[in-house]
Amino acid sequence: MAATLKVGVAGLGNVGAALAAQVAQQREALALRCGRRVEIVAVCARSKSKERGVDLRQLKWFTDPVALARSPDIDVFVELIGGSGEPAKSAVEAALASGKSVVTANKALLAKHGLRLAQLAEKHGGALNFEAAVGAAIPIVKTLREGLSGNAVQRIYGILNGTCNYILTKMEQENLPFADCLKDAQRLGYAEADPTFDIEGHDTAQKLAILASLAFGTRVEQSAIYVEGISSITPADLAAADELGYRVKLLGVAVKTPKGIEQRVHPTMVRKDSSIAQVMGVTNAATIDAEGLAPLTLVGPGAGGAATASAVLSDITDIARGLRTAPFGRPSARLLSVRKAPMQRHEGGYYIRLLARDRPGTAATIAKRLAEQEISLESIVQRHRKGEETKGGSVPVILITYATHEDAVRKALAAVGRDRVISGRPQVIRIEKN
Amino acid sequence: MAATLKVGVAGLGNVGAALAAQVAQQREALALRCGRRVEIVAVCARSKSKERGVDLRQLKWFTDPVALARSPDIDVFVELIGGSGEPAKSAVEAALASGKSVVTANKALLAKHGLRLAQLAEKHGGALNFEAAVGAAIPIVKTLREGLSGNAVQRIYGILNGTCNYILTKMEQENLPFADCLKDAQRLGYAEADPTFDIEGHDTAQKLAILASLAFGTRVEQSAIYVEGISSITPADLAAADELGYRVKLLGVAVKTPKGIEQRVHPTMVRKDSSIAQVMGVTNAATIDAEGLAPLTLVGPGAGGAATASAVLSDITDIARGLRTAPFGRPSARLLSVRKAPMQRHEGGYYIRLLARDRPGTAATIAKRLAEQEISLESIVQRHRKGEETKGGSVPVILITYATHEDAVRKALAAVGRDRVISGRPQVIRIEKN
Repeated sequence: MAATLKVGVAGLGNVGAALAAQVAQQREALALRCGRRVEIVAVCARSKSKERGVDLRQLKWFTDPVALARSPDIDVFVELIGGSGEPAKSAVEAALASGKSVVTANKALLAKHGLRLAQLAEKHGGALNFEAAVGAAIPIVKTLREGLSGNAVQRIYGILNGTCNYILTKMEQENLPFADCLKDAQRLGYAEADPTFDIEGHDTAQKLAILASLAFGTRVEQSAIYVEGISSITPADLAAADELGYRVKLLGVAVKTPKGIEQRVHPTMVRKDSSIAQVMGVTNAATIDAEGLAPLTLVGPGAGGAATASAVLSDITDIARGLRTAPFGRPSARLLSVRKAPMQRHEGGYYIRLLARDRPGTAATIAKRLAEQEISLESIVQRHRKGEETKGGSVPVILITYATHEDAVRKALAAVGRDRVISGRPQVIRIEKN
Repeated sequence: MAATLKVGVAGLGNVGAALAAQVAQQREALALRCGRRVEIVAVCARSKSKERGVDLRQLKWFTDPVALARSPDIDVFVELIGGSGEPAKSAVEAALASGKSVVTANKALLAKHGLRLAQLAEKHGGALNFEAAVGAAIPIVKTLREGLSGNAVQRIYGILNGTCNYILTKMEQENLPFADCLKDAQRLGYAEADPTFDIEGHDTAQKLAILASLAFGTRVEQSAIYVEGISSITPADLAAADELGYRVKLLGVAVKTPKGIEQRVHPTMVRKDSSIAQVMGVTNAATIDAEGLAPLTLVGPGAGGAATASAVLSDITDIARGLRTAPFGRPSARLLSVRKAPMQRHEGGYYIRLLARDRPGTAATIAKRLAEQEISLESIVQRHRKGEETKGGSVPVILITYATHEDAVRKALAAVGRDRVISGRPQVIRIEKN
């Protein structure tokens, strides 16, 4: 049997503790799978005395992750510190520069510095694996990086943030407003005290940046992503979606278009009978549309200590078995720069909810402004819902457009706003074909 | 760049032709991903002149697949002949014995001779990859073999046969009898002229045998599988399932129990809100329940030329990148023999539909026979459906049991039969918790 693979783990929160437990529990199975033993030999964390449910006292302890990363005692550096800044960045760089392999769950670091880290890994011959950075235990990174070799990916989209999906699920199922469901998510530990990063779509955007790079062979470029969160979604939107045969999900979508690659995060109407629409609560999912293939959808736990540790360990075993794959699927020098498709040129159907002033001529004005932008309507519903207020003599109007341009929708709604026939801001939700 | 990986393909049906097309279309991308070129250099098929939509005239042609398998011109032998017998078996053996790697989509061959072929691959140092043998483009083999390293799998179940799922979907959605939907499937090319292999569950069983081996580290043993097909399912069963919150799917299930490993293929009631219940038409899916993890479900195209070729090519690229994994995830000498849990000891809920004779005492008799076997009922429904015939004064009765033993159900129903209070055979469908 080959030499033991010696692993150093920086960061001993839920994920680190779960990883240590899994390595211990699966010791024999891992050795069989890898043809060699896998052992955690060193760790780095602030407190040695904290109860973690697993005995780590016999390991070598570090307080400086960079020192652990450089330590000759380890073959693989596992970074579970998080964040795109220090000390995670320096520690990962130090490990790669010393020829070690790195396994990380750090989406922020990869979304920001992915290209540079991939270059460093290549230069020094180590692996850089990050299955846990997107969708935790869902093997989406492996599937894009190693599978689907013969099929050009056309589109990848997913529910990549459990917090948002939990909130949207609860809003829909219990007809509750966003704020109540956010509070509930916070109470259950699904949302942070400051939930902005999750609910405004930034977490999804970081994950999407990584998936888009893997799917299209492009450089990770988080700044190319259009981002909208879910805080404006109301129970009325979800009820209307339901009636129209849709469900609203916060999706990250990356798609090849004739204008370049569109990368966007926003609340999205998806057909109720699609696989992705069935994904409820904190569960994550990703769908890959590749040339000539029916869609492939992977659904599973997208967060949590055990699920994330499972992905980290899967990455470690790949290293133990000698597998080296270019971090983003191809040599970093051959990763393409993203030709960004501008969001104004986005083409698709739109759900638009307006509060129209209840007086003669309103409908005609709205219709005229849409026609000016050559927007055709698939359906128009003006209806009073039980219990819904009409503010100052306004009635909700829901429009579903045929495929049109983002730009046209924005111009038409701006004109409608200037016409003073609606109150408040129109709600706009893009419809994703699936 | 390393030397070109030279591939020989035996069998040029839909899959072989799609593979050749994908290799040609993705030439550059494959070279980038693998760090070397991948080329099909030789093929074996009966007719050289058949139109396959891709130009193969410049390749080396063989008429004997064993000769191709032994040819020094190739590094990888792709077996797309099918069947557990000749010539597929000898060709795969010849390729492995000469130290070549083999990629195959042949579930029958693996279900029957998997252990021996794995031994041969190990002995001579070649890879034996078979992603395409189960669920075509769904990366279920890779996920079990390489992923989930830290989590002991407790159960794996899936919709592994598109023909059956198409028929059940159509029966449910259009309220049509089995025979009509089978004919429709045949007309569309989803079912063979002799559909037995698919509809009686044998195709699912072969795939399940492979998945169970990968999931539990056991030897492939198709004979350990209990198999029941879908031909007895009626629209009345599907309507009753719907009312009770279930859908009926033909599942292959492999599960660890205290009595050993249960492997079974049968029509199954699954909760309507589960991921697996959403899988409609010819689509396939598999769910993995691993220790400490929420379920992971993979959904996608389970058959078809392009989908199968995609999986074959993914296997080829793994070989090109130098990845060698034990065919069933661990050295074949360390694969365990299956401790088979007998089906009579299966424990779970049951759906039972009886045609009860409409006369005094019938209900009491049935209740007594169930009580004798200590079977508790969760629900009992006796109702006339519109349009349903009552044959000779019989009425349909639907029972849902709490968890009980297969043995108890069989004994109770045999006693009810002897009591002559029902007509025809009772319909029994197992309920799978999910």
